[in-house]
Amino acid sequence: MAQKTVLIVYAHQSPGSFNGAVRDVAVQELTEQGYRVIVSDLYAMDFRASAIRDDIIGDLKNSELFQYGEETMYAWMDGRLSEDITAEQRKVEEAELIIFQFPLYWFSVPAIMKGWMDRVLTQGFAFSLEKMYNNGIFKDKKAMLSFTTGATQTMFRPDGINGDINITLWPLQNGTLHFCGFQVLAPQIFWSPAHCPHMVRTAMLDGWRARLKGLLAEKPLTFAPCELFDLSFQGGFLLWPKAREEQESQPYGITTGHHLGKPLPPDNQTKAQPTDEK
Amino acid sequence: MAQKTVLIVYAHQSPGSFNGAVRDVAVQELTEQGYRVIVSDLYAMDFRASAIRDDIIGDLKNSELFQYGEETMYAWMDGRLSEDITAEQRKVEEAELIIFQFPLYWFSVPAIMKGWMDRVLTQGFAFSLEKMYNNGIFKDKKAMLSFTTGATQTMFRPDGINGDINITLWPLQNGTLHFCGFQVLAPQIFWSPAHCPHMVRTAMLDGWRARLKGLLAEKPLTFAPCELFDLSFQGGFLLWPKAREEQESQPYGITTGHHLGKPLPPDNQTKAQPTDEK
Repeated sequence: MAQKTVLIVYAHQSPGSFNGAVRDVAVQELTEQGYRVIVSDLYAMDFRASAIRDDIIGDLKNSELFQYGEETMYAWMDGRLSEDITAEQRKVEEAELIIFQFPLYWFSVPAIMKGWMDRVLTQGFAFSLEKMYNNGIFKDKKAMLSFTTGATQTMFRPDGINGDINITLWPLQNGTLHFCGFQVLAPQIFWSPAHCPHMVRTAMLDGWRARLKGLLAEKPLTFAPCELFDLSFQGGFLLWPKAREEQESQPYGITTGHHLGKPLPPDNQTKAQPTDEK
Repeated sequence: MAQKTVLIVYAHQSPGSFNGAVRDVAVQELTEQGYRVIVSDLYAMDFRASAIRDDIIGDLKNSELFQYGEETMYAWMDGRLSEDITAEQRKVEEAELIIFQFPLYWFSVPAIMKGWMDRVLTQGFAFSLEKMYNNGIFKDKKAMLSFTTGATQTMFRPDGINGDINITLWPLQNGTLHFCGFQVLAPQIFWSPAHCPHMVRTAMLDGWRARLKGLLAEKPLTFAPCELFDLSFQGGFLLWPKAREEQESQPYGITTGHHLGKPLPPDNQTKAQPTDEK
């Protein structure tokens, strides 16, 4: 049996950073557990972020009007994606879990990591209209965000100046990772380590190490299963009437994004829901 | 008096694309209105997306541990940011309105545009802890997103497969644009133009042209004013108790992100609220 693999997609410029320390803890702990750990160190690799014509080897299907999404889909089918993309796709295929390790830049991933998502998660390879969300191509894989913030935790509460962190995480966790099928583990958030005393940072790393011991067995976050929706253009990809009726008596929406005009389910994008015994 | 200026930050690889046509309509219409229109065509400029050491000219304050945010803040203060960043910052200073024109990639801007945000919106130049949100540095400027989607409009409803578009827009509109003070105009969303007949695309462009005629006079989107929050580390940057009390009787939260456990204010990130006559 092939050795189980974890991929860490890592975006910090400095090996001596707190993000670097967090990555090192993950590499060490997961290696001790018997995993093969691959690190894609995006800055060290000088990974290109921009989605451009060079991502396709050979001729374009339509050189008059370059459509990145379509051209890369065809190139993937033909094995004509650029070598750097193909190399990352191979890592994704091998990985049981992907950890994205980064400092939060503008309520999101740094551009170099957004470039990894834009370029590596090609249509066909990572998703299709038939295969998305819980029916997605990577539904047997796990993924998670692990990041540092400049802001403190209270700033990202619904009553904090930046608003609810659950909202901020939605485009990344639902719109990108879960869209491709990944089971998304709760994010590991290191709140404002740069403004913490050394002892607190050490305690953060210890907490991360402890979490890593059970990480692969964790229950993932809850998203809206595709089966609730009429996945046809005619049906508008909207909730089935029956599903809507069943939701009516619920106190909360289904997810952060599928709120249905109700209060958001608390911590939907930050904590796995306890197993529900109805 | 200097001529009033609009900056279009544009991210599409192909001049013949629908995004290109949308940009052309904006350039033409705003020029006719007497504006000077500058276009930063990011792919044509080969704009680098990654935030790296080369963004600082000369020595680092701390070369042992490269901290991008801090180093670029100092470099901005000393006039030692790289030429490409400085050129964009000059355009931002001159602009009364910035339009970000792009195809939605993974529920967000393409990496090349995220790179523009990461690199151009330097601390000191674009924000500080004292100057943010409605007290932000660019509070006398306007900004807006104008983008195309692959998805249809119903997919991005709260009961659609992708969840509420208002949630998806929050990190960009609140966390980036409004964070820097910009008054954010309602987004211009072109739903799935690639899958529309030519006539529909033409109608979309006509609608955009019509909107542009009154664009600069539009009421911006509503965000939570800083005055509602105790902006101190001791106070956690949280809502003042009095503000919380005043919100209690309201049917909706304040914004998409400041929902306070209530239903979200409808269309908070997509439509300006009608002027309220209490």
